[in-house]
Amino acid sequence: MIVRDRLPLKRIWPQAWRRLLILLFFDCTVAVIYTVFKHHWISLNGLPVAPLASALTIFLAFRTNAAYGRWWEARSLWGQLVNYSRALARQFLTMLDDELEPKDRIPLSKQLVLHQIAFPHVLRCHLRKQTPFSEIQSILGKDIADEMRRYKNVPAALLVRMGGLLKQARNEGMLDSFRWAAIDENLTVLANIQGACERIKNTPLPRQFDYLPRILVDAFCWLLPLALVQDLGLMTPIASTLISFTFIAADLMSREISNPFDNTIHDTPMTALSRTIELNLREEMGDEGLPREFRKQLAELQPVDGFVF
Amino acid sequence: MIVRDRLPLKRIWPQAWRRLLILLFFDCTVAVIYTVFKHHWISLNGLPVAPLASALTIFLAFRTNAAYGRWWEARSLWGQLVNYSRALARQFLTMLDDELEPKDRIPLSKQLVLHQIAFPHVLRCHLRKQTPFSEIQSILGKDIADEMRRYKNVPAALLVRMGGLLKQARNEGMLDSFRWAAIDENLTVLANIQGACERIKNTPLPRQFDYLPRILVDAFCWLLPLALVQDLGLMTPIASTLISFTFIAADLMSREISNPFDNTIHDTPMTALSRTIELNLREEMGDEGLPREFRKQLAELQPVDGFVF
Amino acid sequence: MIVRDRLPLKRIWPQAWRRLLILLFFDCTVAVIYTVFKHHWISLNGLPVAPLASALTIFLAFRTNAAYGRWWEARSLWGQLVNYSRALARQFLTMLDDELEPKDRIPLSKQLVLHQIAFPHVLRCHLRKQTPFSEIQSILGKDIADEMRRYKNVPAALLVRMGGLLKQARNEGMLDSFRWAAIDENLTVLANIQGACERIKNTPLPRQFDYLPRILVDAFCWLLPLALVQDLGLMTPIASTLISFTFIAADLMSREISNPFDNTIHDTPMTALSRTIELNLREEMGDEGLPREFRKQLAELQPVDGFVF
Amino acid sequence: MIVRDRLPLKRIWPQAWRRLLILLFFDCTVAVIYTVFKHHWISLNGLPVAPLASALTIFLAFRTNAAYGRWWEARSLWGQLVNYSRALARQFLTMLDDELEPKDRIPLSKQLVLHQIAFPHVLRCHLRKQTPFSEIQSILGKDIADEMRRYKNVPAALLVRMGGLLKQARNEGMLDSFRWAAIDENLTVLANIQGACERIKNTPLPRQFDYLPRILVDAFCWLLPLALVQDLGLMTPIASTLISFTFIAADLMSREISNPFDNTIHDTPMTALSRTIELNLREEMGDEGLPREFRKQLAELQPVDGFVF
Amino acid sequence: MIVRDRLPLKRIWPQAWRRLLILLFFDCTVAVIYTVFKHHWISLNGLPVAPLASALTIFLAFRTNAAYGRWWEARSLWGQLVNYSRALARQFLTMLDDELEPKDRIPLSKQLVLHQIAFPHVLRCHLRKQTPFSEIQSILGKDIADEMRRYKNVPAALLVRMGGLLKQARNEGMLDSFRWAAIDENLTVLANIQGACERIKNTPLPRQFDYLPRILVDAFCWLLPLALVQDLGLMTPIASTLISFTFIAADLMSREISNPFDNTIHDTPMTALSRTIELNLREEMGDEGLPREFRKQLAELQPVDGFVF
Repeated sequence: MIVRDRLPLKRIWPQAWRRLLILLFFDCTVAVIYTVFKHHWISLNGLPVAPLASALTIFLAFRTNAAYGRWWEARSLWGQLVNYSRALARQFLTMLDDELEPKDRIPLSKQLVLHQIAFPHVLRCHLRKQTPFSEIQSILGKDIADEMRRYKNVPAALLVRMGGLLKQARNEGMLDSFRWAAIDENLTVLANIQGACERIKNTPLPRQFDYLPRILVDAFCWLLPLALVQDLGLMTPIASTLISFTFIAADLMSREISNPFDNTIHDTPMTALSRTIELNLREEMGDEGLPREFRKQLAELQPVDGFVF
Repeated sequence: MIVRDRLPLKRIWPQAWRRLLILLFFDCTVAVIYTVFKHHWISLNGLPVAPLASALTIFLAFRTNAAYGRWWEARSLWGQLVNYSRALARQFLTMLDDELEPKDRIPLSKQLVLHQIAFPHVLRCHLRKQTPFSEIQSILGKDIADEMRRYKNVPAALLVRMGGLLKQARNEGMLDSFRWAAIDENLTVLANIQGACERIKNTPLPRQFDYLPRILVDAFCWLLPLALVQDLGLMTPIASTLISFTFIAADLMSREISNPFDNTIHDTPMTALSRTIELNLREEMGDEGLPREFRKQLAELQPVDGFVF
Repeated sequence: MIVRDRLPLKRIWPQAWRRLLILLFFDCTVAVIYTVFKHHWISLNGLPVAPLASALTIFLAFRTNAAYGRWWEARSLWGQLVNYSRALARQFLTMLDDELEPKDRIPLSKQLVLHQIAFPHVLRCHLRKQTPFSEIQSILGKDIADEMRRYKNVPAALLVRMGGLLKQARNEGMLDSFRWAAIDENLTVLANIQGACERIKNTPLPRQFDYLPRILVDAFCWLLPLALVQDLGLMTPIASTLISFTFIAADLMSREISNPFDNTIHDTPMTALSRTIELNLREEMGDEGLPREFRKQLAELQPVDGFVF
Repeated sequence: MIVRDRLPLKRIWPQAWRRLLILLFFDCTVAVIYTVFKHHWISLNGLPVAPLASALTIFLAFRTNAAYGRWWEARSLWGQLVNYSRALARQFLTMLDDELEPKDRIPLSKQLVLHQIAFPHVLRCHLRKQTPFSEIQSILGKDIADEMRRYKNVPAALLVRMGGLLKQARNEGMLDSFRWAAIDENLTVLANIQGACERIKNTPLPRQFDYLPRILVDAFCWLLPLALVQDLGLMTPIASTLISFTFIAADLMSREISNPFDNTIHDTPMTALSRTIELNLREEMGDEGLPREFRKQLAELQPVDGFVF
Repeated sequence: MIVRDRLPLKRIWPQAWRRLLILLFFDCTVAVIYTVFKHHWISLNGLPVAPLASALTIFLAFRTNAAYGRWWEARSLWGQLVNYSRALARQFLTMLDDELEPKDRIPLSKQLVLHQIAFPHVLRCHLRKQTPFSEIQSILGKDIADEMRRYKNVPAALLVRMGGLLKQARNEGMLDSFRWAAIDENLTVLANIQGACERIKNTPLPRQFDYLPRILVDAFCWLLPLALVQDLGLMTPIASTLISFTFIAADLMSREISNPFDNTIHDTPMTALSRTIELNLREEMGDEGLPREFRKQLAELQPVDGFVF
């Protein structure tokens, strides 16, 4: 996610520059052919530029809307993940009757919070198609990491593991049926968040929405100088490039944000968010001695060069 | 669902080509009649093309919006089906007290997960008006498949069967009232998903929304060359075909995606999703020996020629 | 609800024809006065047609949006009614401990399902301002029909009756507090559906939204030929009628679907849906001998002449 | 709320007339100065009317959308109040074990329903900044009315009182913890409805949304005749007034409905709705002898002169 | 939040003035160069102003929509905070069995309400990046304020503290599992509200949405006089400034409201709302002797100079 207020245009739309330069060259050629070499047949003066432009605008606006809806839904899902991670941690820490806890193991409530800390990291790796096992190992230990290697859908397997821990808590009398169900409901919310992220990841906008505007923007940009050259003469390139830039930028803008889990600079900042969750939950858990490495990682939460990942 | 990034236009809009060719022929005729044979009365120069075009655009944009809403809702419903299938499987596997399970039958929790695996397949067949019985037989056995043959609404009957299994679990003491109700709530969610899919399937967009734009686009495309020919002369066909293409494509685009359960290439990929659910649930259940045929089916989940079904 | 794909335009917009014919006549008169009798003062050539048309379009698009929202909400509410009827029937049939049921009466679970079958019929009659008592009598018997005659809001009274049956079930030990509350929650959902339908029925779109576009469309259609006649001459009626048709049709289209409970051909198909619910619930209940008359009614579910009610 | 289909324009937009008359006078002056006195410098022929008009239209459409969202949310909230009042009444009447009720007082269930009847009246007065105490006295008696006088936020205090009655019911053994919580959840819904109404009441649309369109509409209307006069001459006032009317009406339309709790004719019909709730709940409660005065009040529910309050 | 109806334009858009003055100066220069010095090459008469303007308008409208969505969501979240604070206070005051309360401490129910009073203040400070400790101290005492100093995310820590108090209440027998879970569910709602506020605070609109319109508005405003000067001559500055003002104001308008937690005059009035909650809750709690200072603070709830913070 871009957070810096002013970025060099070049960084934002590298793809746009090439197209604009080619168009600028074409615009100049047309202007010169018309005004210098007097080839007037090149002019398409009666071309209905206004209705074409407004049709284009409205399709682009529609697509921007749909793309923004996806982008904002992705961000909201990760926001919900923050909230429910905190809420589940609160429930794990207060709802389990820990006086029954045997002394010789990590308390179940703490184990559950650690699983909850691991879940966002694992979901992030799952969505970015990376392996989550080193993350799991550093939080939950080598045994669980190895166990998880057997599964294709690791976040779902982690939720089943948490369900198993809750069952154990109940069998040991630390949880009655009622509180169990109240907590389990929130695990279902986590499953929902995961599924919704996968839906956004796996279902692009209908391909036609991507295809048609690209073709039309191109056609429009190439016809534009022909339509303007009779009125504007040598000024054609200025007007034509400005208008082309508007439409190309609008086209790119909505294309970029429509896939918020694609490892681009327009992504939902999943790394930052899963670290934030880790920080919050370790704080709630009272994890005093945050190791040094962890502090280092937190420093990386700061935007680097105007971007957060 | 189309997933390939670049598809030949011909595959996407076969219906559009014929209309465009006829229009192109008409455009050329008009241009020739006007410029070569000098029949100037054919020109409709003062025709207010801009307001007509903007009216058309806005109606098409509105319909695209509504159609996209239906398409995305359909996809989201199946996404939810994925989530709740996983959540229910987790509940079946952790919430039933399986120490009471008699040795000589398939454990109830496993039976329930198998029913849950069958449900998306059955719902898919129900929406595509296919018979689900071979799917049921391969997952739940011949007896249950035969029992299901009696019902018209098979997915609803399957949910009642699952309710019956839960009741049995409770009568055998494997489930208390409280957990029963917590699981039953999620069955209600499945009923909601089924009903919402049926609603989208059975309620097309208001027929007028389909009808009026088609008529207007046609009228507009036929009038367009008459309005442009005086200014553009022999260039008319280029401009006219481009603009006609914009509107015809926009018309088709929103029509195609408005019925996401109609066995077309624009469908929600229900086959792929119900297979994904099967894979996830068998994994959660710890179904080690996935049979060979199943692996073959999973291979079919890969997009074929740019499409997923 | 209209389901046929192609309907004669005449059936769809009977009101539109008269207005269009009058306008056509006016258009021709203007064209003749201008071109034949040379009364050039009749022309309003500088009239800014484009901004007026785009203002009109946008207001119509806004209203279409709001009207479609109401239409789709109405349909979704009845879709929810289908889902929750099935879910409640499942709960009645599986959650009541029927081993305690006395032999000499209709089992409570079956009574409750019958009430649930009656509810959509009663709600439909309530919304269409028809008397529901013959429907109630054929499903629940004469006694209950007579009892219901005392109430003004019959669907609400039916829900209170169902609440009473649940209380009886609990007093007889067939239901514990917990399951009672779980079922009662779904009765609250039914109350919500009823209330939302009443809201749509009783609250039309703000009257100004109805009023202003009608006036403006009329004014626009009458001024249009005056604005076009100088450029188009005797061709005026063609262009003018086409554009007028666009706006009149768009105006009617959104007006028609804005009241989905008004006994018109644009209604939510409540009769078909309440019959579907009856069929589904009798199937779930295992009602083997569906009487002959009922089969006949089901046949009526088929679209007649392209319409479903 | 306006319910009559056709209202004299004068009643709907009294504020619009004065502005329109002043504009008409200005339009005529401009037309006369230009055509009769030949002061041609007054004409602003090149003014880009179309883009200005479309910018205005789109801002107005956006604001209409936002205002309609508020209006419809307000109406939906009161619709929900109807539903939850019925649902709570059903719960009070069926869920309390009334066999434990002492003979010498009004049964708790009935007291609770009466409180529920009072709540919408009190909320209505709260939103309209009127005193609710006479309403409370006629429903709940003088003692409770006096007790309520101590509070600033009377509806919230009423909900606390209802919470207290439920606690009493539980202490007397008429309600177990579980049903208590199920009912209390619906009290939270009432608190939500109240809060959402207060939010709409206290948070107007951002002041800029109100301010900017008003200024721009005015500027546009005053510049319009100057832009049109060269083309239209003495016909200017007709065209100019029609277009000005469109924009002024659209401006007023969205302004009016944006504040649905302001005691205007565009209000949510809270009086009618709270009486409807009273009628429904007294019916559910079996309140046979509705007093004469109450019947009279009900008669007032009918629209008076096309308005419901 | 601005509440006064009419504010001097200068206060609303101080940033706009400078830009407008510079543009006015440029407009005049162009007009003079063209009409007085006859440098006709400066004119860009054929520039397609209309499509550019409509493209701009639609992008601005889209952004206004998204920004308004954020603004209204922020306000709704704080509205929900009001509702759930009242609901939780009602639950704390009625659901705890206070007969078991030891005499020698502040009753737990009261402690919980005080925590609930503190939560909105703390959340406000958290969002505005201020220190909340003086607020906590004045409500909950010095000890708790000091304890809170250890946490980075103070609102989340406060919720964990409230969870701890509920656990204590249960351990002392004042709360059964069931009511505990019912209350805890509402604490999860508070966590959700906090997280959603943080999401809005930390995720600005995609930077491109901010960037592209600003560039385009600027380009448009500078080209506009060149396009108009041939038609309008010395009148150019009037028309050009009016149109520039429209676009600059629309640009600023949506920018301002898109960040509702940024300590500007366009903020959600969090100070007023957290004081309102305090007042309501102290009233519900029956806190008779509201200290003098508190009354003073309440007086500050009144809008100052047309603004509420």
